[in-house]
Amino acid sequence: MERHFDQELEDLKQELLRMAGLAEQGVAQALKALIQRDDALARQVTADDAVLDKLEMDVDDRVIKLLALRQPTAKDLRFITMAMKISGELERIGDQAVSIAKRALALSQEPSLKPLVDIPQMAEHAQGMIRDALDAFVYAKPDLARAVVTRDARVDALNDQLHRELTSFMIEDPRTITRALNLMTVARKLERVADHATNIAEEVVYLYEARDIRHQNQ
Amino acid sequence: MERHFDQELEDLKQELLRMAGLAEQGVAQALKALIQRDDALARQVTADDAVLDKLEMDVDDRVIKLLALRQPTAKDLRFITMAMKISGELERIGDQAVSIAKRALALSQEPSLKPLVDIPQMAEHAQGMIRDALDAFVYAKPDLARAVVTRDARVDALNDQLHRELTSFMIEDPRTITRALNLMTVARKLERVADHATNIAEEVVYLYEARDIRHQNQ
Repeated sequence: MERHFDQELEDLKQELLRMAGLAEQGVAQALKALIQRDDALARQVTADDAVLDKLEMDVDDRVIKLLALRQPTAKDLRFITMAMKISGELERIGDQAVSIAKRALALSQEPSLKPLVDIPQMAEHAQGMIRDALDAFVYAKPDLARAVVTRDARVDALNDQLHRELTSFMIEDPRTITRALNLMTVARKLERVADHATNIAEEVVYLYEARDIRHQNQ
Repeated sequence: MERHFDQELEDLKQELLRMAGLAEQGVAQALKALIQRDDALARQVTADDAVLDKLEMDVDDRVIKLLALRQPTAKDLRFITMAMKISGELERIGDQAVSIAKRALALSQEPSLKPLVDIPQMAEHAQGMIRDALDAFVYAKPDLARAVVTRDARVDALNDQLHRELTSFMIEDPRTITRALNLMTVARKLERVADHATNIAEEVVYLYEARDIRHQNQ
């Protein structure tokens, strides 16, 4: 039975890694659709998100079954309950990717407002944070998780900077307003992707150090 | 032991109801601060949110202990794991209230842009949804939870309508841009409050009907 339980935990980890891969890919594809003005790809992002939705429900079922049948204790118990929280965060990252893809569809209808430099940079940061937060979870690396938490500030700063820049565009030329609003939304969704990755990382620190670092900077 | 376990479940319910009350109050106070241009109250909302943050961590600990010591099965197990998800949603509602309060502080620095009609209406809807979602959870009313899920569309519609109206303001008079952006943010935060209430309601339907209604309309 011990060996079997280990295998079940391993399966749970693999399912979460798969979800993280899909979440990261959703963000990457949404960005690609935005930058290359590829409407077909933008629509594909929405279609692909259904897989992530399904996996979240699978993880929940798996967790409930593990808790009921294995009655795990201590660290395993904490790991399993965190898996449920983490799958929720990953599913929401997928939702952000869908929102970005929708804005990409709107933006491809109009001429480009400005070269997209900050937004791909934000996306790259956010994707790296997802990847590292999940690695920290699965491979028990609380230090890596702590590093993810500190990286969130960079994404926030890029978002604030872009918000100011786009506000100036709008004030100078009202014809840019709709496009600027759509780009603000894209940036905000990426900032939320980074927030979800940060939430995961905070849970990971809690899991492995039994210290709750949520809400420390408030 | 049975009786004691019942009492622990009851305590968990009461703690969630308390969180829901605080979350709803946070939204109400943030709106009051916005409408009455009351900066002191806006700052109070941010300070009060710490209680909700603390309660979320308490609920998590309580859930982990219940799972470890009581090893509940079937419906109790599902109820307890959902409690953890629900406390997460309520804590995030508190975060939205804080964001609204911040915008209230920014908006009170400038003359009023327009009479606030839609925003209080959105807030009222969202607050009712939080209340009913929690009642549905604690008093085992899946029908009430289903009704909450359908009400989300109304809040989304109000948000879209306000977004269009504020965009027109911005196009007509660029001096309104900063204020319009702040009001858009307030409306969007309220829409997210309603989303969190909807997430809770979907979990409640799942809990009591063992049917997952998440992602049905996608």
